[in-house]
Amino acid sequence: MIFIGEKINGSRKSIQQAIRNRNQDIIKRTAFEQAEAGADYLDVNAGTSPDREADDMIWLIDVVQSVTDTPICIDSSLQEVLSVAIEHVNHTPMVNSINADPKRLESFLPIIKEKGCLVIALALDESKTGMPKTNDEKMKNIQFIMQVVSEYEIPDDKVYIDPLIMSVGTDNEAGQTAFEGIRRIREEYPMAHITGGLSNISYGLPNRALINRTFLTLAMGAGMDSAVVDPTNVGLIESMKATDMILANDRFCRNYTKASKINFIKK
Amino acid sequence: MIFIGEKINGSRKSIQQAIRNRNQDIIKRTAFEQAEAGADYLDVNAGTSPDREADDMIWLIDVVQSVTDTPICIDSSLQEVLSVAIEHVNHTPMVNSINADPKRLESFLPIIKEKGCLVIALALDESKTGMPKTNDEKMKNIQFIMQVVSEYEIPDDKVYIDPLIMSVGTDNEAGQTAFEGIRRIREEYPMAHITGGLSNISYGLPNRALINRTFLTLAMGAGMDSAVVDPTNVGLIESMKATDMILANDRFCRNYTKASKINFIKK
Repeated sequence: MIFIGEKINGSRKSIQQAIRNRNQDIIKRTAFEQAEAGADYLDVNAGTSPDREADDMIWLIDVVQSVTDTPICIDSSLQEVLSVAIEHVNHTPMVNSINADPKRLESFLPIIKEKGCLVIALALDESKTGMPKTNDEKMKNIQFIMQVVSEYEIPDDKVYIDPLIMSVGTDNEAGQTAFEGIRRIREEYPMAHITGGLSNISYGLPNRALINRTFLTLAMGAGMDSAVVDPTNVGLIESMKATDMILANDRFCRNYTKASKINFIKK
Repeated sequence: MIFIGEKINGSRKSIQQAIRNRNQDIIKRTAFEQAEAGADYLDVNAGTSPDREADDMIWLIDVVQSVTDTPICIDSSLQEVLSVAIEHVNHTPMVNSINADPKRLESFLPIIKEKGCLVIALALDESKTGMPKTNDEKMKNIQFIMQVVSEYEIPDDKVYIDPLIMSVGTDNEAGQTAFEGIRRIREEYPMAHITGGLSNISYGLPNRALINRTFLTLAMGAGMDSAVVDPTNVGLIESMKATDMILANDRFCRNYTKASKINFIKK
């Protein structure tokens, strides 16, 4: 299981303020605690002010890299931010994100190809209004993305497909739709990875943490092999490690047993 | 999800002593707390002393029925215990258990048929030595049981098949084997139920409760629709309710939302 730490995000108030005030301490702590918790990548999102996003992103990357070697996931919708950010990272990054919008693909994929990045691909098309609701619509977007990706000779296993989870509180079938989508992606693109945020599933319901971690377990059972999460959420991470072990992805139960010794699993 | 409360079992020391001393309070409390927690059936096992099992079973059934209307799961390997117990229950019971041993089938099925009981069927053959290890061996036992069951004209949906979970600590693939077994049973006997204990999965590993509830979620995702559990284990029951909701078995999220209000879900 590859997991991406989501906490350094300019849409969160504390991070936004830290960026504005160039407060390194908060960023360093947030980076360090996620890396210590075992995150494979740290998502870095500098917010969405076009006039300052590139500067903020570079500052963030430098601060994060001053405390950890964990590779960065550059989270921006702007090609100009991506191209400067990519020159600042010490390790091959992940890029968050592309979608079926041809303009986005055209501007992002040459950089991704050149640098050998991993990339998150959302099953939507930003150039069209409305979110895709059915798996047929999502698969159409994914097929288009994967077609263009292959034209750039980027191998499938560099792509982390996000099937876009919806809330089970507004649509009773949202979980089943997600699992069916995951199985279809796994079937059609066996080498690609499947990732995504989890928190939409529980929108509007009580005890969201319980629903999110239970959903993660079921999604992993269906074939999801990556997620964008808060690595400091012990309940979530222990569920993830137990699931990986039960799904035979943890030889001799080593990761699980190790995690139970260093307190990533509650006693 | 149909769940069977496992706590009134003569192999547990406190229950054994309560039976010996005819201590009604412990039995009443154990029955009541499991019923309150929403158990669909209460397993009642009087231990394994052939000379007193029938008397103990009748006493237990009377005590349990004095505090709750939740139907009983008569847990005995003796035909003579089953036949007297079945005359003491107020509601159609479940019977725990049959297996592919022809003698057991011959002695239990006429009673089960006559009284319209539900029955747990273990995927083993008691008349042979050794536990079945592969799903092929287990399916052979299940096919034999289901064949005999159908000869008695007992419908498949009365049968709760237990695929016999093994420890992921001794066999890395034990989880995957269980899920494959569950899928095969679901495929071959779509009307039958699939049940079982959970705790074997975590044998020898740290934080067993975490592994057990994570396994339950994955097993439900694979098609398990019943389990033999401790209903007072809040962490397990909340996982079960969240899983049922995510799997679209909880219309309008009503059971989940209700459970979250009456403290079966942790805040």
